[in-house]
Amino acid sequence: MRGFQQRMEVTRFLELIRERIPVGGAPAAEPETLSLADAAGRVLAHPIVSEINVPGFVRSAMDGYAVRSEETFGAGPYNPLAFKVIGEVTPGREFPGRVGPGEAVRIMTGAPLPAGADAVLMAEYAREEGGVMTASEAVATRKNIGRIGEDIEAGTQVFPALRRLRSQDLGVLASIGVGNVSVWRRPRVTLLITGNELLKPGDMPRGAMIVDSNSVMLKTLAERDGAVIAEIRHLRDDREVIRASLLGAPGDLLMTTGGTSVGVEDHAPTLIAEEGELLVHGIAMRPSAPTGFGWVAGRPVFLLPGNPVSCLAAYDFFVGLAIRRMAGLRDLWPYRRERYPLADRISSQIGRVDYARVKLERGRAVLLATSGASVLSSTTQADGFVAVEQDSEGFAAGDTVDVWMYD
Amino acid sequence: MRGFQQRMEVTRFLELIRERIPVGGAPAAEPETLSLADAAGRVLAHPIVSEINVPGFVRSAMDGYAVRSEETFGAGPYNPLAFKVIGEVTPGREFPGRVGPGEAVRIMTGAPLPAGADAVLMAEYAREEGGVMTASEAVATRKNIGRIGEDIEAGTQVFPALRRLRSQDLGVLASIGVGNVSVWRRPRVTLLITGNELLKPGDMPRGAMIVDSNSVMLKTLAERDGAVIAEIRHLRDDREVIRASLLGAPGDLLMTTGGTSVGVEDHAPTLIAEEGELLVHGIAMRPSAPTGFGWVAGRPVFLLPGNPVSCLAAYDFFVGLAIRRMAGLRDLWPYRRERYPLADRISSQIGRVDYARVKLERGRAVLLATSGASVLSSTTQADGFVAVEQDSEGFAAGDTVDVWMYD
Repeated sequence: MRGFQQRMEVTRFLELIRERIPVGGAPAAEPETLSLADAAGRVLAHPIVSEINVPGFVRSAMDGYAVRSEETFGAGPYNPLAFKVIGEVTPGREFPGRVGPGEAVRIMTGAPLPAGADAVLMAEYAREEGGVMTASEAVATRKNIGRIGEDIEAGTQVFPALRRLRSQDLGVLASIGVGNVSVWRRPRVTLLITGNELLKPGDMPRGAMIVDSNSVMLKTLAERDGAVIAEIRHLRDDREVIRASLLGAPGDLLMTTGGTSVGVEDHAPTLIAEEGELLVHGIAMRPSAPTGFGWVAGRPVFLLPGNPVSCLAAYDFFVGLAIRRMAGLRDLWPYRRERYPLADRISSQIGRVDYARVKLERGRAVLLATSGASVLSSTTQADGFVAVEQDSEGFAAGDTVDVWMYD
Repeated sequence: MRGFQQRMEVTRFLELIRERIPVGGAPAAEPETLSLADAAGRVLAHPIVSEINVPGFVRSAMDGYAVRSEETFGAGPYNPLAFKVIGEVTPGREFPGRVGPGEAVRIMTGAPLPAGADAVLMAEYAREEGGVMTASEAVATRKNIGRIGEDIEAGTQVFPALRRLRSQDLGVLASIGVGNVSVWRRPRVTLLITGNELLKPGDMPRGAMIVDSNSVMLKTLAERDGAVIAEIRHLRDDREVIRASLLGAPGDLLMTTGGTSVGVEDHAPTLIAEEGELLVHGIAMRPSAPTGFGWVAGRPVFLLPGNPVSCLAAYDFFVGLAIRRMAGLRDLWPYRRERYPLADRISSQIGRVDYARVKLERGRAVLLATSGASVLSSTTQADGFVAVEQDSEGFAAGDTVDVWMYD
């Protein structure tokens, strides 16, 4: 029942995660194939090169008339020139004939230019009556048409590997005839929730038993960061039960909650040391000091405090980073950043990171009471958090700070 | 084949959407019940009041010894006081006995305080040997314990209606014994993709046929904004076919793409006018001028240009807003905002909104060539967009502007 001997600095912990877990890399380094409709937000495993030209034909960029451009030269408001309209072409169809001397074809945006024509006269400069179109402006050769490959040329790399696919990217892929893509599969995460006092979510608290609130929180945070949950196990504080799950539970990454400190029933850290590598145990952060990190059975294991606020902060700082890297995503926090003046002082220490929940009131960030770190409701009343970096002693009231918004 | 007579201003269009589509309201105004694990990001239909106190028992806030506080008064480093250790209590268990005079019980954080005790002495100020604990500090009454209801008191409103549930909110709900929540169901959206020239995503373009790139884009954008896709229909440019779908397709909201302008095959706007209300047709925005909005068969219908860039911009400005409101979400754009100096001039006109794609290069926002609005790849090469508001004539090179990041 004593404190940690030494606490690792947060920057060192983050470095360690980046060293150990390459982006899009092992242990989640197998691609899977998905249809475009299911690939939004997923990360490309390989570059994509277009096999075709888009468009694959010369198309009209305007509604108007397909003409032989040199025949319009000299046309003007006071010198209208007449053309015989020999038909119409709309998108999706080839015009069956050919535009000959003195002829024009009515054409819609996106339709293929008929043979014989080399430009499109905009509808604004044309008037049609009784099968005759009169042009009141000349049009230059190749005017108002899109050339073959104007959008995308065959052989062009359209996206590099590790591109996170946006909605519009899926549109481009469809347009080059790609229907399925190879993306990194989602890292599979298993939660080991330890504590004799814990009931499962959905149960009503009774006697000395409380409901585990971390599993639903961690599940949805991990999903937000690109993971899929392999399993959620609720375990008693029994050394051999926990050992068996550390070694045998499915998943590319494990998180444990509870039993991470240095007390009698804090089995996880010593088990990690016995069965693998305990790389971090105890960090210079408030809350979340009893956080750990190690490697067992070929995969990363994060030890998160059972205290819900500490658990959230440790997830946000460390596990989220690891999962996003395994999913091939960017390291950025998935929170909006806003800047507000502080209503209160936040004091910290050089070498320690503070995770301070704040509420916005009349345009200022008000610190939420932090007496009991166990008060999970402080994170639900909060609009966001301020992270005090380890080289800072904190902020004075009135300082403008970054607030990372929970919404 | 003539242009729009009149173009509606973007601010008026946005007002109209807000007037017609209440937040969390009709036509998607039925709640559904979900388990906590499936409720992240969903919007509460009703307020939630806690039926219970959390914690429901007096708990220890520290590892240490449960004592009768007045017996520690006078203890100090030079005056240690001895207590008989009569047992231990860990979380989840009630101590079966009672702490009598001269007695103490070893206790872990989160364990219920044994009867008879009224405070916890921190482990740091205690030493135990041979069943005897010596205290080197006094502890005040009720020190280091959490009272009943300290986190949440029975009868407290924990969340108001329309709360968008965060991961940590789900944790709080679990802790008050709530396993299922009533949330607004997702608005169901149907896409009507019109155009004789269109193949379905997954097909290879051939001849004058191109692949529809809008449906996969719009599907995933709508899902991002909280919708579920009811159906995607690819329709020929046939007036009666389109009419039947406008009236009979499933969904709380319809989007059409293509055929939204004033040309011969632009059926959708006139059909909306015949069968319901055409509220908007033609807007003061570049690109996306041929955008429309109406109401048919008791539900909103958005008419989006077939041009993929215009389609994206019109979705982002108008449809996304409508879907987020129907889903009970906030009106905010789901894009990160960053500020960068412009490398180029962006010229606009008073009264018109411009949606300009930019790429970040050496810390500056570079305008992407906008000659052909049809170049969808400009939105995939872009890192984000700059919106020039309608009361602005644009920006000079060097001006610092908001860039809405696509990533």
